[in-house]
Amino acid sequence: MLAALGYDSLTALATAAVPDSIRLPFEDGAPLAVPPALSEDEVLAEIRALSSRNTVRQQMIGLGYYETATPGVILRKVLENPGWYTAYTPYQPEISQGRLEVLLAFQTVVSDLMGLAIANASLLDEGTAVAEAVTLMRRSVRGMPDARVVLDADCLPQTVEVVRTRCEALGIDVEVADLTAGIPDGEVFGVVVQYPGASGRLRSRADYAALADAAHERGAMITAAADLLACTLIEAPGSWGADIAVGSAQRFGVPLGFGGPHAGFVAVRAGLERALPGRLVGLSVDSAGRPAYRLALQTREQHIRREKATSNICTAQVLLAVIAALYAIYHGPEGLTAIARQVHGRAKAIADGLRHAGIRLVHDHFFDTLLVSVPGRASTVVANARRADINLGQDGPDRVRIACGETTTFAHVAAVLAAFGAVPVTGDDVTVGDLYPEDLGRTTPFLTASVFHEHRSETAMLRYVRKLANKDYALDRGMIPLGSCTMKLNATTEMEPITWPRFGAIHPFAPAEDWPGYLTLIRDLEYWLAELTGYDRVSLQPNAGSQGELAGLLAIRAFHKANGHAERDVCLIPASAHGTNAASAVMAGMRVVVVAANDAGEVDLDDLRAKIDAHRERLAAIMVTYPSTHGVFEDGIRELCDLVHSAGGQVYIDGANFNALLGLAKPGEFGGDVSHLNLHKTFCIPHGGGGPGVGPVAVKAHLAPYLPNHPLVAEAGPATGVGPISAAPFGSAGILPIPWAYIRLMGPDGLLRATQVAILAANYVAARLGKHFPVLYTGRNGLVAHECILDLRPITKATGVTVDDVAKRLIDYGFHAPTVSFPVAGTLMVEPTESEDLGELDRFCDAMIAIAGEIDRVAAGEWPADDNPLRNAPHTADVLAAAEWTRPYSREEAVFPNPAVRADKYWPPVGRIDGAYGDRNLVCSCPSVEELAAD
Amino acid sequence: MLAALGYDSLTALATAAVPDSIRLPFEDGAPLAVPPALSEDEVLAEIRALSSRNTVRQQMIGLGYYETATPGVILRKVLENPGWYTAYTPYQPEISQGRLEVLLAFQTVVSDLMGLAIANASLLDEGTAVAEAVTLMRRSVRGMPDARVVLDADCLPQTVEVVRTRCEALGIDVEVADLTAGIPDGEVFGVVVQYPGASGRLRSRADYAALADAAHERGAMITAAADLLACTLIEAPGSWGADIAVGSAQRFGVPLGFGGPHAGFVAVRAGLERALPGRLVGLSVDSAGRPAYRLALQTREQHIRREKATSNICTAQVLLAVIAALYAIYHGPEGLTAIARQVHGRAKAIADGLRHAGIRLVHDHFFDTLLVSVPGRASTVVANARRADINLGQDGPDRVRIACGETTTFAHVAAVLAAFGAVPVTGDDVTVGDLYPEDLGRTTPFLTASVFHEHRSETAMLRYVRKLANKDYALDRGMIPLGSCTMKLNATTEMEPITWPRFGAIHPFAPAEDWPGYLTLIRDLEYWLAELTGYDRVSLQPNAGSQGELAGLLAIRAFHKANGHAERDVCLIPASAHGTNAASAVMAGMRVVVVAANDAGEVDLDDLRAKIDAHRERLAAIMVTYPSTHGVFEDGIRELCDLVHSAGGQVYIDGANFNALLGLAKPGEFGGDVSHLNLHKTFCIPHGGGGPGVGPVAVKAHLAPYLPNHPLVAEAGPATGVGPISAAPFGSAGILPIPWAYIRLMGPDGLLRATQVAILAANYVAARLGKHFPVLYTGRNGLVAHECILDLRPITKATGVTVDDVAKRLIDYGFHAPTVSFPVAGTLMVEPTESEDLGELDRFCDAMIAIAGEIDRVAAGEWPADDNPLRNAPHTADVLAAAEWTRPYSREEAVFPNPAVRADKYWPPVGRIDGAYGDRNLVCSCPSVEELAAD
Repeated sequence: MLAALGYDSLTALATAAVPDSIRLPFEDGAPLAVPPALSEDEVLAEIRALSSRNTVRQQMIGLGYYETATPGVILRKVLENPGWYTAYTPYQPEISQGRLEVLLAFQTVVSDLMGLAIANASLLDEGTAVAEAVTLMRRSVRGMPDARVVLDADCLPQTVEVVRTRCEALGIDVEVADLTAGIPDGEVFGVVVQYPGASGRLRSRADYAALADAAHERGAMITAAADLLACTLIEAPGSWGADIAVGSAQRFGVPLGFGGPHAGFVAVRAGLERALPGRLVGLSVDSAGRPAYRLALQTREQHIRREKATSNICTAQVLLAVIAALYAIYHGPEGLTAIARQVHGRAKAIADGLRHAGIRLVHDHFFDTLLVSVPGRASTVVANARRADINLGQDGPDRVRIACGETTTFAHVAAVLAAFGAVPVTGDDVTVGDLYPEDLGRTTPFLTASVFHEHRSETAMLRYVRKLANKDYALDRGMIPLGSCTMKLNATTEMEPITWPRFGAIHPFAPAEDWPGYLTLIRDLEYWLAELTGYDRVSLQPNAGSQGELAGLLAIRAFHKANGHAERDVCLIPASAHGTNAASAVMAGMRVVVVAANDAGEVDLDDLRAKIDAHRERLAAIMVTYPSTHGVFEDGIRELCDLVHSAGGQVYIDGANFNALLGLAKPGEFGGDVSHLNLHKTFCIPHGGGGPGVGPVAVKAHLAPYLPNHPLVAEAGPATGVGPISAAPFGSAGILPIPWAYIRLMGPDGLLRATQVAILAANYVAARLGKHFPVLYTGRNGLVAHECILDLRPITKATGVTVDDVAKRLIDYGFHAPTVSFPVAGTLMVEPTESEDLGELDRFCDAMIAIAGEIDRVAAGEWPADDNPLRNAPHTADVLAAAEWTRPYSREEAVFPNPAVRADKYWPPVGRIDGAYGDRNLVCSCPSVEELAAD
Repeated sequence: MLAALGYDSLTALATAAVPDSIRLPFEDGAPLAVPPALSEDEVLAEIRALSSRNTVRQQMIGLGYYETATPGVILRKVLENPGWYTAYTPYQPEISQGRLEVLLAFQTVVSDLMGLAIANASLLDEGTAVAEAVTLMRRSVRGMPDARVVLDADCLPQTVEVVRTRCEALGIDVEVADLTAGIPDGEVFGVVVQYPGASGRLRSRADYAALADAAHERGAMITAAADLLACTLIEAPGSWGADIAVGSAQRFGVPLGFGGPHAGFVAVRAGLERALPGRLVGLSVDSAGRPAYRLALQTREQHIRREKATSNICTAQVLLAVIAALYAIYHGPEGLTAIARQVHGRAKAIADGLRHAGIRLVHDHFFDTLLVSVPGRASTVVANARRADINLGQDGPDRVRIACGETTTFAHVAAVLAAFGAVPVTGDDVTVGDLYPEDLGRTTPFLTASVFHEHRSETAMLRYVRKLANKDYALDRGMIPLGSCTMKLNATTEMEPITWPRFGAIHPFAPAEDWPGYLTLIRDLEYWLAELTGYDRVSLQPNAGSQGELAGLLAIRAFHKANGHAERDVCLIPASAHGTNAASAVMAGMRVVVVAANDAGEVDLDDLRAKIDAHRERLAAIMVTYPSTHGVFEDGIRELCDLVHSAGGQVYIDGANFNALLGLAKPGEFGGDVSHLNLHKTFCIPHGGGGPGVGPVAVKAHLAPYLPNHPLVAEAGPATGVGPISAAPFGSAGILPIPWAYIRLMGPDGLLRATQVAILAANYVAARLGKHFPVLYTGRNGLVAHECILDLRPITKATGVTVDDVAKRLIDYGFHAPTVSFPVAGTLMVEPTESEDLGELDRFCDAMIAIAGEIDRVAAGEWPADDNPLRNAPHTADVLAAAEWTRPYSREEAVFPNPAVRADKYWPPVGRIDGAYGDRNLVCSCPSVEELAAD
């Protein structure tokens, strides 16, 4: 490959590609002070030793995180299966039908249980979901520009603080009040109530309905932060008037993982569909008119709306939403109800025992959580329980919180009672009902769709999951050459620890004595990432790149404020930037000013100077991706940083493309004040089909006081911080063993080599394909960085063959398409990464070159522009089996266009999907059996 | 389903099916004294507690079991993947091409490394492999009927005892002698040498060649029990004259598992191909003339040759052979050599340190194992090492054995030396060569085939493994309705523990203090199985059903001898018995006398009386399967037992069909003296594509003194036992958590219900299909037991459509065929098991009925007998893509014969395979790159 490019070493190539002004001295080894590489065995031994320092107890702390049993078939066949965890976001729906089907089921679970018209799939966690609901209410309620939002005092404490962090930046006032006393006076645009309360409290249906009515009478909307499992027994929020319901799907089979990743959700009443944040899966039709799934209403999303976006959510928690949906599919409504009844029964058995012992419960009505009044004795009771390997929640010196979950056994009931000096007085029979507010019992049906009734044995479930995975294209089939998304396969060794109980079964609010192993791992990783990026401090709390961006920008805002420059609110963003940058800036309370690109696709430094001049006094920051979103190492990066700094601005370097930089240059050393990284890109966390991600933010020392922190866990960040950016203290802590193990396995030289090979692979592909498809932008010495943009626009103009045609035709050749029309419409962006070997790179290039040959046949008039293998792609087996064949190319040309395909054919389950049809006819939940019968 | 059969309860159906004379009183619950069922969570917690009582140490004991690192991608994607572990033996090769390809690679690994013409895939363990080699030598050497076999004194101690057990039964004399002093005088048909020796000793190539020459000059053959890894560095046994090489593939990535399961192997020189025991994969061609794999030379096997068989091996260790082959494919010759060099380097570093400290090594030349002379101090040294969490081997009071493995680090080297009071004197550089006998270094190439050079990254390997699995049909796709083979899906919960280090990383000869968890699990399981079968004692040592049979028959023989009836050697076997029964009887030194069946397919009691009369004085036993191999509960079973007992014979009830009996009747109570069970059938160990199996033998108290035992582990069996039947003390101990968890999850009522549902499912299928294909045999009330035989013979006679045509056509419908032509030629035997739900049973019945409809069209002359969808089945995608279609049925009828197929199409990778072609042109290893180039 080097020979093909005319270089004699990886070092020579990297030296030629990277500007002198920023390049580290890597010729004699990687200038990266991380520990030397270990073997897989040794890494597993080290991480096993770390895990052994964590202590697993029965977690009965509650506050949004509950014990749940991940069914083995889901654990093994989804969470531990690369067919699921290495998939990409389903932007190519024809090869993502399996997980789209499950995500539609997720939406159905949420909308059914919440009693609302439509739900998304999915959000990052419950705290950010409430924040999204607050801003959704804010922009839906007109005419009260200065109104505030009121959160019930019984909301989860981390939710309150996440909302405060977000609202502070947006200038929205937040009031926390006890809503049992009614909604406080004054203008209110939204009300949020926890359902059931953080304390476990349940009020009567009449109380909730009265609250909703009062909100609506005041012109406000009402959001319920609701528990999915509780809603199998108690009435759906939509039924008593909630406009919005949000929450976490964690307790549907997703391990605790020290706080995440878990899928958050949001559902809204009819009429608010198009205001819903996040991704939405909907039904549409394919080229044969058959039902097919795809992402709906994408025009709402941040990558389209940029600074007009109302949310910056991007990567969500697809893998966890898939697990939660499959959990619901496996158990069905009867199974979920039975689990809920058992959970409630165990809580009731504890309540009965406590009451019998004369111990007072703070609330009479509950689902799974009790608040117990033990004046002066709370710490003693909690300590007693810990001796029985049970973690209870302590709420001050006088109160103990007890939260039951799916795995709470009657032995736990007895042990909890013993911690209070009480004993069980009722047997282990599950009795439900008499402790509920009598009017709150659920009467509306849920999960009536057939999928929730068909897969009730492990055998059936295994086959269903396999069938779904068989429809999808993930890294276990072949390369996914997505520009900017760095789809590289992670090692199994990195994945193994995440499902060990000593990582998976830790509650985020367990006492710190339970998680020294986690803390060491987190501190290691923070230290290593700071070293690799050239920054001083790192926060791992942001659980997606978008949240890392927000955290970084909030730190900049806080820094300016602390320096008496609250007026600095302008964020410069190059025209080529990812749309999320602009959306994040708006969410951080900034004004976006766009900087133009020059003909070479680089930031136009003249325009930059002009924009700086125009906004010098209010300049807060510039947000720039490096290497650029055009896949090029721009020479002017140092000058750019200097210009902004000299005007008093901060430099935010988006780390999305850090895979091209690691070991070659350090953004913290060439001018960055802050960066976020995507650990699900460079650091090998698998993409999960669209999440989970981890988006740590790295800062220079002057910004360190403004990193995120957490109200319940002091270790999470500085006391001077901006507040929590995620609900959990360390975000998606449960998957941090992956990047930890990756860095440990690679060592400094491995990390450097990976970057160099990524650049080699991209330039090799650019060199092979450039003869057939022009490479739009190159940098120094005609080299690209780690990706290249193939310009299809001349071809489209000449032949009518579009980028979409090429993308779909690649499916017939057994490939996932590159990134389509980003950052330039009408182009394909290819990032091969260092993890694909020459055989796979050539297989891809051969396919692209063969497609170029097919385009030539269209151009030559041999095939009509509207009836050729590209336009009709992808070709299904159904098409092949048709008796009649009237196309101008052969069946073999349709499905076996080259010999490599024949050796391992991927059959797309549907033909090309008509996305517009689905947006016109919005269907975002599984049809019920009755609806199907009516068809 | 009950309604379709006219019964109102499972109990009523079972009562109608099972003869009164043997039926337990199960109407009010299962009469089975095993603990009540626990939830999956609770079982995992219990087994986790058991595992925590085992202690993992670095295992440097050697003696045939070594530390190895299972690559994560193989662990996750093969050993933990139902796509591999639930497959059946590849008797339907068209849908088994993936694992057949890997098994061919296994054979190539063995034949290349052993330097011999042909290898099988695979045997049960090294001990039995040597025993098979001894009998192979015995029957290959003519003219010395009274000659003995000589085993070198440096053979593995368990191997020596397994050979003694086997040879004792066959009347072959065994002598153990130090072959450094030459082959002892007297007639010798075979010589066995361990290579390297159990002590670690390596002799010069000249020594081995001289030994082989001497053997050949004496008219004897020579077998090397060789180490695969060592043979990457030292010359192949075939190169110095060995006729046969055997061994274990454990150290190629297979976890220790407390002794098993691991794949044994055997390779032979040219000319001995057709004498090779076990399964052999070979290349053949499919209907389109393309290369395709299938089992070769099946006429050699026990199920064909019955009492003329020379080995009873049946289920082998396919899953473990697959793992070992993939390990070799992943590492390639360079990687394997590097591992071997590292292993040797570590051993050398220990040797250097010991010598420097003035400590004497017993042998100068070694690969990985040292024998150290420490007069009087051996136990002190071993105890010192244990304090550093290292297990060394102790050989008497004066010697310590140190065996290095793939995971031995330099830290282990230092710790081992410290246990002797020594320190490292050389660095951690891997230096090889000067310690070898100088003429023994390997010069012959190995693993030159391309498959060993193409998959060197985890990415490439993952895709290769997925591609292979995609070719195969396993339980993750749909039912495998094999009569007599009880293919039911096991729960993930049962599988999880087997790859936990506390079960997987225990050496079989570790001190008993290291494995109290295992021992408790084993004793629990022995006790429960005894209770479930009505016997008094159980041995779990037999690692396949065939070995259980042999152990049971050996116990009977030993019992008769102990009672002064050594002359009792006649074993009655019904005509319908599985061929393995007869082969086992021969191996136990018995003479087989066949008992006829009557028209109803049952044992003809009149003929039984006649045979008993004819052999009354020499009657040893009857071997009978119950319910019968015809799938029927025979009424006369009690009378049969009484007849045999009254003549002084013992009753062996083959437990292959115990899935129909568990909870309904106990063989130990209705007349059996001994049974074996197949834990890989009734007790949910997955079939592994043809193993591993566990075949425990259960006996009444009078036979208990004659169960297997083990020379190195007293806990394995009675001191009065017949010797070891397997190399490891508890056979395939590593997978015993599976049946343990199964019984614990099911509890007595679950076990009973499973049996009843299995009978229900079989009768439901018989009722639905009986209208289209006559059910050959039924029992009481017209009911079958847990399986039914569909008689195709009239159809074949009338239409020419054969059972094979139906079996292959089922592939087009998305099914694995039922058992073909066993126990009656021209029939299909269907066992649906309790694990398939009504949806899947109906999908199968619908397919069979649709096939009946297709047969009708052949019968009606609509389709020619030689050109119809049945005869041309299975249909590949290649066939579908052909431009021309000249068949009398449509493309759609070929591949989408019904709508259910369209929803989840399985595409067979090859068309129908011509098995005879491959037997005529025997190719049983991967072609080298040169050979391919020559094509």
